[in-house]
Amino acid sequence: MSQKHVVVVGGGFAGLQAARRLGKQKEVRVTLIDRRNHHLFQPLLYQVAMAGLSPADIAGPIRNMLSKYRSIRVVCGEVTSVDCDRQTVTTSYGEESYDYLLLACGAIHGYFGNENWEPYAPGLKTIEQATEIRRRVLNSFELAELSDDPDVRKRELTFVIVGGGPTGVELAGAIGEMSRFTLAQDFRNIDASSARVILIEAGPRILPMFDASLSTKAMRFLEQLGVQIWTSCRVTKIDQAGVQLGEERIGAATVLWAAGVKASGLGSKSNLPCDRAGRIIVQEDLSVEGYPNVFVAGDQCAFVDPKTNRQLPGQAPVAVQEGRFVAKMIANDLAGQPREPFSFRDKGQMATIGRSRAIVEIGSFRFAGFFAWIVWLVVHIFFLTGFRNRLFVVLSWAWSFLTFRRGARLIVQKEWQSYPADVD
Amino acid sequence: MSQKHVVVVGGGFAGLQAARRLGKQKEVRVTLIDRRNHHLFQPLLYQVAMAGLSPADIAGPIRNMLSKYRSIRVVCGEVTSVDCDRQTVTTSYGEESYDYLLLACGAIHGYFGNENWEPYAPGLKTIEQATEIRRRVLNSFELAELSDDPDVRKRELTFVIVGGGPTGVELAGAIGEMSRFTLAQDFRNIDASSARVILIEAGPRILPMFDASLSTKAMRFLEQLGVQIWTSCRVTKIDQAGVQLGEERIGAATVLWAAGVKASGLGSKSNLPCDRAGRIIVQEDLSVEGYPNVFVAGDQCAFVDPKTNRQLPGQAPVAVQEGRFVAKMIANDLAGQPREPFSFRDKGQMATIGRSRAIVEIGSFRFAGFFAWIVWLVVHIFFLTGFRNRLFVVLSWAWSFLTFRRGARLIVQKEWQSYPADVD
Repeated sequence: MSQKHVVVVGGGFAGLQAARRLGKQKEVRVTLIDRRNHHLFQPLLYQVAMAGLSPADIAGPIRNMLSKYRSIRVVCGEVTSVDCDRQTVTTSYGEESYDYLLLACGAIHGYFGNENWEPYAPGLKTIEQATEIRRRVLNSFELAELSDDPDVRKRELTFVIVGGGPTGVELAGAIGEMSRFTLAQDFRNIDASSARVILIEAGPRILPMFDASLSTKAMRFLEQLGVQIWTSCRVTKIDQAGVQLGEERIGAATVLWAAGVKASGLGSKSNLPCDRAGRIIVQEDLSVEGYPNVFVAGDQCAFVDPKTNRQLPGQAPVAVQEGRFVAKMIANDLAGQPREPFSFRDKGQMATIGRSRAIVEIGSFRFAGFFAWIVWLVVHIFFLTGFRNRLFVVLSWAWSFLTFRRGARLIVQKEWQSYPADVD
Repeated sequence: MSQKHVVVVGGGFAGLQAARRLGKQKEVRVTLIDRRNHHLFQPLLYQVAMAGLSPADIAGPIRNMLSKYRSIRVVCGEVTSVDCDRQTVTTSYGEESYDYLLLACGAIHGYFGNENWEPYAPGLKTIEQATEIRRRVLNSFELAELSDDPDVRKRELTFVIVGGGPTGVELAGAIGEMSRFTLAQDFRNIDASSARVILIEAGPRILPMFDASLSTKAMRFLEQLGVQIWTSCRVTKIDQAGVQLGEERIGAATVLWAAGVKASGLGSKSNLPCDRAGRIIVQEDLSVEGYPNVFVAGDQCAFVDPKTNRQLPGQAPVAVQEGRFVAKMIANDLAGQPREPFSFRDKGQMATIGRSRAIVEIGSFRFAGFFAWIVWLVVHIFFLTGFRNRLFVVLSWAWSFLTFRRGARLIVQKEWQSYPADVD
């Protein structure tokens, strides 16, 4: 019997989990295609942006993570379109035919049609974006220190975060903490702890996916770190000088975007059925209607949970469970077993605020504060892939916790050349 | 009595050491100006380029390293010229007047008039360059894996290092080791251990600053890692496709430059007396002739050691001793003591080759191999600044040594934006 060829597009949580399960099956060979050479532990990416961790602490080469499965081939390339009728994907290096396809390309930040805001308000989805945010935040303090003009200083020391979900809350809390503790001693002309951190949320409260009591706790924690929370505020414009909220204007050198995501464009480009955010609409077994051998998982997948009647959130646990489920369905097919409907087991959610506070919600069990933060810590360490990353992150955190310092306070430039490009 | 103002330009080994000594003096206040926010432990930079360490492991914020000295102000800015008669430096943020000036701007790579080679053959002086080299080396393996064309594969798997000094030897050894041990298991189509690594040296032997017996040992170690050593070869051209050596041509996707350095251009731009490499010529007390309050230290300083009649090498120990000496001369002046001549105490030199070999030369005492590597390790850990960096580097090395893996195998792109720049 010849092996079935499974093509997995994307090495995030969903793709990696599916590949690991399929790597144990003798009946299949797998090709995992990703634009990047690394898998990224996105839940901790905000700590790279906030100079607490190095990129390599939360990322690892996909090729290495899967090297023990001899039937898995990892390819660094970009998939540009999918042809479900011909059962092929077109990539930057040529075409791949498949017997089964898993699309798990994830999501990028969406600006609700205002994509030209991106240069002024980076989102946080990739390592490149995280180091760009780190550069901007640290640079602002440097520029404020250099200037004698109070207006310039105020502008440089104003940080606006748009979006009151977990990422926005984590970023706001980290900037608040960094300015108050880490940087306070290091500057001579400015008081780093006087930095203004403003968190803007369009809805009536931050962290709307949590119970209202936990939202309130999170607000209190943020306010203790000096973060101002503006709810029911809608951003109408972002430019180099700051943020416009209808009539009101905030002058800010650093604006970060944590408000919206949209799925990778591959679904719409390939004429697959998509929802408004570009996610591919799937059946109850996560396959695309009419193409039982094409699956979608993770942030790219539009799946309405029949238990809650809501789209599943773009979170790691959802992607992990979906990836594993797809691997199981393929195994079922090969074993002549029927498909099953996907069912998400919700194990709860959590968010962290600053250096020692978090909120945790597990079903109707809710708690907040230091103990919640310990739980957050243990869970994140546990799910972080690889012994080395786990060890290094634990040590980085212990060091930062004890010293109030941050281990990766580097402003790294984009340009590497010493000589201008026009030298000839 | 008003405090004297000492301006230190550059936060490398020389500038940082001088500032630390001067920070203890009540009679002076110090302004340290650097273009970057971080001090870099350059002797380990090749390990960042070779995916063994993260940038933050070998760099730290200058501001934080000096924060305990309340009389030191750290400024992130660029000095564009010096006026010794008016006693001012012009910077990107305005003018600074000084009573004493220390120039310690270091060196960049020099291409002997062929600066247009840089895009094809990056040097290794900054973190940006190190991550660029890492990107190129790791990418070459990915592209070779993707291609079925044996010519493309051969070109992608050929790595040329130009320059047989310590940096060139360290880079060549690390690529040899990485391809043979770290990457060998991770690829399916290519044999990573078949990579060709060619080290090109214009002189008759590599590591000419060491005794000939150690050069020979280093050659043998490199050859055991599969590195080919081409001595007495002069590069006549470098372009996108490879390297030209007179009649001969090597097709290579990755070419690294470790052949020549030249001092920062600040000396010549400021009409100070310079040697051919742009280093500023100094008196025996490291001050510039006619300007006893202007000192130069580190790679920017042209100082011929009266003991050997040779220019002191561009190495960390020289910069450290020069920086400390300048601080002492300023203290002498303020205490009404005479100046002294600078005398370099040579404590020996060492270079490492691959994962467990080094050569060490301390006076006439020479040794090579595993024990030399242990010495190299201990010395580098000892001089690495800061408890956190030390701990993390030790752990990274222990992990890599035991597992043959590398902790920072990330290909990070230059662009951070998700949307093309022309979106409007």
